[in-house]
Amino acid sequence: MEIYHGDIVYSKDIKNLVEYKDSYIVVQDGIVEGIYETLPERYSNVEIIDFGGDVIIPAFTDLHTHAPQYPNRGLAMDEVLANWLDKYTFPLEEKFKDETYARDVYTAFVDDMIAHGTMHAVVFGTIHNKATDTLIDQLERHGIMSYVGKVNMDKNSPKYLLEDTQESIDKTELFLQKHIDKVYSKPILTPRFAPTCSFELLKELGNLMAKYKVGLQTHIVESKWEKEEAKKCFDGCRCDMQIYEDAGLLEYGPTIAAHFIYPSQEDIDILKKHNGIAVQCADATTNVIAGIMPTGLLLDNGINIGIGSDISAGQSLGIYIQIASAIRLSKIKSLYEKENRVISFAEAFYLGTKQGGSIFGNVGSFEKGYYFDALVIGGLEDKYQELKPVEVVERFCYAGEVKNIKYKFLRGKEI
Amino acid sequence: MEIYHGDIVYSKDIKNLVEYKDSYIVVQDGIVEGIYETLPERYSNVEIIDFGGDVIIPAFTDLHTHAPQYPNRGLAMDEVLANWLDKYTFPLEEKFKDETYARDVYTAFVDDMIAHGTMHAVVFGTIHNKATDTLIDQLERHGIMSYVGKVNMDKNSPKYLLEDTQESIDKTELFLQKHIDKVYSKPILTPRFAPTCSFELLKELGNLMAKYKVGLQTHIVESKWEKEEAKKCFDGCRCDMQIYEDAGLLEYGPTIAAHFIYPSQEDIDILKKHNGIAVQCADATTNVIAGIMPTGLLLDNGINIGIGSDISAGQSLGIYIQIASAIRLSKIKSLYEKENRVISFAEAFYLGTKQGGSIFGNVGSFEKGYYFDALVIGGLEDKYQELKPVEVVERFCYAGEVKNIKYKFLRGKEI
Repeated sequence: MEIYHGDIVYSKDIKNLVEYKDSYIVVQDGIVEGIYETLPERYSNVEIIDFGGDVIIPAFTDLHTHAPQYPNRGLAMDEVLANWLDKYTFPLEEKFKDETYARDVYTAFVDDMIAHGTMHAVVFGTIHNKATDTLIDQLERHGIMSYVGKVNMDKNSPKYLLEDTQESIDKTELFLQKHIDKVYSKPILTPRFAPTCSFELLKELGNLMAKYKVGLQTHIVESKWEKEEAKKCFDGCRCDMQIYEDAGLLEYGPTIAAHFIYPSQEDIDILKKHNGIAVQCADATTNVIAGIMPTGLLLDNGINIGIGSDISAGQSLGIYIQIASAIRLSKIKSLYEKENRVISFAEAFYLGTKQGGSIFGNVGSFEKGYYFDALVIGGLEDKYQELKPVEVVERFCYAGEVKNIKYKFLRGKEI
Repeated sequence: MEIYHGDIVYSKDIKNLVEYKDSYIVVQDGIVEGIYETLPERYSNVEIIDFGGDVIIPAFTDLHTHAPQYPNRGLAMDEVLANWLDKYTFPLEEKFKDETYARDVYTAFVDDMIAHGTMHAVVFGTIHNKATDTLIDQLERHGIMSYVGKVNMDKNSPKYLLEDTQESIDKTELFLQKHIDKVYSKPILTPRFAPTCSFELLKELGNLMAKYKVGLQTHIVESKWEKEEAKKCFDGCRCDMQIYEDAGLLEYGPTIAAHFIYPSQEDIDILKKHNGIAVQCADATTNVIAGIMPTGLLLDNGINIGIGSDISAGQSLGIYIQIASAIRLSKIKSLYEKENRVISFAEAFYLGTKQGGSIFGNVGSFEKGYYFDALVIGGLEDKYQELKPVEVVERFCYAGEVKNIKYKFLRGKEI
């Protein structure tokens, strides 16, 4: 049992951030037992670890990112999505045929993700099995709850990333078999997106889903280009989500729909029906000039949303920064499209912690029974005024840096 | 004389970033003498300070920020401009009637600005003389080239910030007289914005401009609300810029037009005629849901543009972050308004260094004769790939942190 003292902030629900000033959080076997403003007598023998005026918050969840694109973060920002893929991203992903290169990049990626306070993640690899084995092994070794996918691409792709359909299926089944019994980092089906996958491939992936009971991550209506391409590629296609439903790829969760920028009502209905979760990757979809997710509208439609860094369309692994960017983008969208409302800080923080974390079980909050996956943040206060704990957290999300994450805990253990 | 070795990047002009790999920059009395890939024989006796693979770039210029709003940075982001002023910003500015509070805040503000690599700035104070004296004194003591304004507000303001017109003029003249002979930090006229100033006040400020030959900073067409308010407040007003021209407030430079989000063609023509400079404060105008500057369109119209942090509508003093945000906003605007093109990284970096710096003379570049106001940036490279110096700079602007500014030089002296 451990007891930590400090200020404590977490999301109770989408509308409410809970704040405890000068309080105690009791953790038993890595799981939150309770929060107390005055410590009950029964804990009087337990040593207290004191964080003073620093604020204890849940660790973040990154629901969409591309580990192999990490070398390009903050670079090559001068193209729209389609050209950006061809010019910068596909050539980089080719390098992951080299397992040594993959290991070097993935080591740096996982270290940097943890440094940014992210302890749960849904991650794209590449088409390459050995490289993606390295990635999932790294995450498992660090105990990071995650879903990792070997990517499938059997059409409309550069030759060096193009798979034969059967080869793609076989390699995917191998990947599933190899990692299905991991404890923390689990495999997930990862067809890149509709334009690079044949329906035959998707249906075979659907069979693998039924056989292995794994989930799906992919890009859904990520740009107008992608949306139109999907319709061209699939006969009678009405919308992106329908393709995956028809292929049987929504039968098991989690269903991770990255971006979800231009959804039709049917996309929304299908995602909701299968309890999927859309991922807002605010800076990423701006950097590649894709568009802005209708976050407020989707939330009001009862859609679950998480936050993603989407390296390397996104520039950094900091989910806290993307929480602030998601708010800003909702503001811009509200200026141009009146039906889209602004989302609040409490909402955006909830998406990046409790809502995103929900696909991993009890993570992303500090209610009783939740894992103590936590960050202690500080160095954000001023000498001339006192901030409320929620204000410290807001400032951290808007203008925080890695140095403001002073301590990190994963299932109760300091890391 | 000093000689520094490393990679060197600066803007030659708006389209071209110049990059020198593994080169030498020779600085004489704080001024750049030249850059050499091979050091000329005549310098063989001078000691070389070696920054290895780190990159030497010009220090940044912040053309619009509110020092008294520093305590609210990264807080209170849930209102549109008009309400945000009433609810959060005006009450905070009232506190600057207390000189001690002002000194504490301004000390932290100036230290943090320098920590973020900004060495030239145009800064709003409050209506209070003593507090604003403290601010300009601080900047002067640090040798930061800057323009600082005592704010004028004689209508449509809360009682506690409302000045009598004559009192406002008298206090402004006092402020000018007191600071006009400073070496680095100079006074500038600072009517808050059209809705809070009577025409009588503006005309009297115009007389002070003629008498003291000082420039002007204010907010121009910052939001649709502000634009409409200005038209209501001034009889026969066609546009914001016309008000200032009519008041004689564009006769001396610099003319700093913060935001410039909804300019009419006449606004553009008047700003251009007087060689003014518009200021893009990307995150700030998004945070308060004001709108997006038509950056590409203005540049193509020959308008000068600089970058501003605009604390505390903006959340951080990092101009490098606002360079990346300016690019992103131009991308979003291009999606919604086809006549607005995307600006490039080279352009945005130029705005935040050489173009913004131009109002201070030879700062913001490393051409011969420019002040060596410089940052040495590092810690952005990867083990598994080599980045070009311009790529290091791009990554810094997209995802850099204060820790990546390893050394700072002001007119050749390390600070």
